[in-house]
Amino acid sequence: MERIRIHTSKRVELVDITEKIQQAVTKSMAEGGICVVFCPHTTAGLTINENADFSVRQDMVAALNALVPADAGYAHGEGNSDSHIKSSFYGASLSIIVEKGQLALGRWQGVYFCESDGPRSREVWVTTAG
Amino acid sequence: MERIRIHTSKRVELVDITEKIQQAVTKSMAEGGICVVFCPHTTAGLTINENADFSVRQDMVAALNALVPADAGYAHGEGNSDSHIKSSFYGASLSIIVEKGQLALGRWQGVYFCESDGPRSREVWVTTAG
Amino acid sequence: MERIRIHTSKRVELVDITEKIQQAVTKSMAEGGICVVFCPHTTAGLTINENADFSVRQDMVAALNALVPADAGYAHGEGNSDSHIKSSFYGASLSIIVEKGQLALGRWQGVYFCESDGPRSREVWVTTAG
Repeated sequence: MERIRIHTSKRVELVDITEKIQQAVTKSMAEGGICVVFCPHTTAGLTINENADFSVRQDMVAALNALVPADAGYAHGEGNSDSHIKSSFYGASLSIIVEKGQLALGRWQGVYFCESDGPRSREVWVTTAG
Repeated sequence: MERIRIHTSKRVELVDITEKIQQAVTKSMAEGGICVVFCPHTTAGLTINENADFSVRQDMVAALNALVPADAGYAHGEGNSDSHIKSSFYGASLSIIVEKGQLALGRWQGVYFCESDGPRSREVWVTTAG
Repeated sequence: MERIRIHTSKRVELVDITEKIQQAVTKSMAEGGICVVFCPHTTAGLTINENADFSVRQDMVAALNALVPADAGYAHGEGNSDSHIKSSFYGASLSIIVEKGQLALGRWQGVYFCESDGPRSREVWVTTAG
């Protein structure tokens, strides 16, 4: 598998990693099959969403912060329970179809690393099978 | 990959696409492996849930509309920020095990296209690997 | 595919199944590829999250119970509409990269069966492709 390095700059943000995933697929020489993108962290996740208007990401972050506030009397003592819950909201893995060496994404789709307890240095793992 | 056409009839609804996914698997001649179902749209998603009682889908739609209302002072100006957020709630991809040419689903499971900004003409992409 | 048996003990709980998934991968003799973990039930799901501090799981269960209460005037008459909604929150499938016969998980990650309508006898299905 390929390991992609990501540096996040805020506590909660969505970082576009579409190009980096495509580079990992290209490097793997895979022509077709299934690309799995995996987040090895428990306070972050992965999602696919709109790649055009940045305000969509702002609304996503704001809505999720409202549903799962950072400070809500959690049992976990590290101050990042909301980050763990957001991680499960997004999920740790994505599966994307690969054709002719390219990620098959819709016209308006980008792949996002969903930082929920940054800023941090992070990794995303990528492999293509089939 | 196979491209499935779907026509939705409401702004927010769950459409059963189980049969169409099975037809795509059958057409691919795959005997076994992993079937990836992918939604190329950013205001819709995919989920697996109860296939028997329609009221489950009604409750799902109503609960998600309550958590992520259509009108909540979003930054994104197209009036469908809630649709993008619902898209990430469901997720864009599903992985289903295939055995003997059949989707391995639980007795009560169906595969649903989760329209969140319809009615529209939509696509779902399907491939089987391994 | 391998079928894993799970016995849950509460209505809502997260059960660590990481070891059982690894045993299924080992039994399959797969050296590498993609492991799909699939939940065939519509009132449970799967997630990957923190494997160290149990309070993270407590906070997850409490937060999700607050967002999707068991009793909220649902249409579905079986008293488990919240369980179906939680099932779609977590999702029915996970994809995990396998290398050298081992699940590639982050240091703090465990795989969890998310019971939302227990206690019950449950199954999880596992296959590795590629």
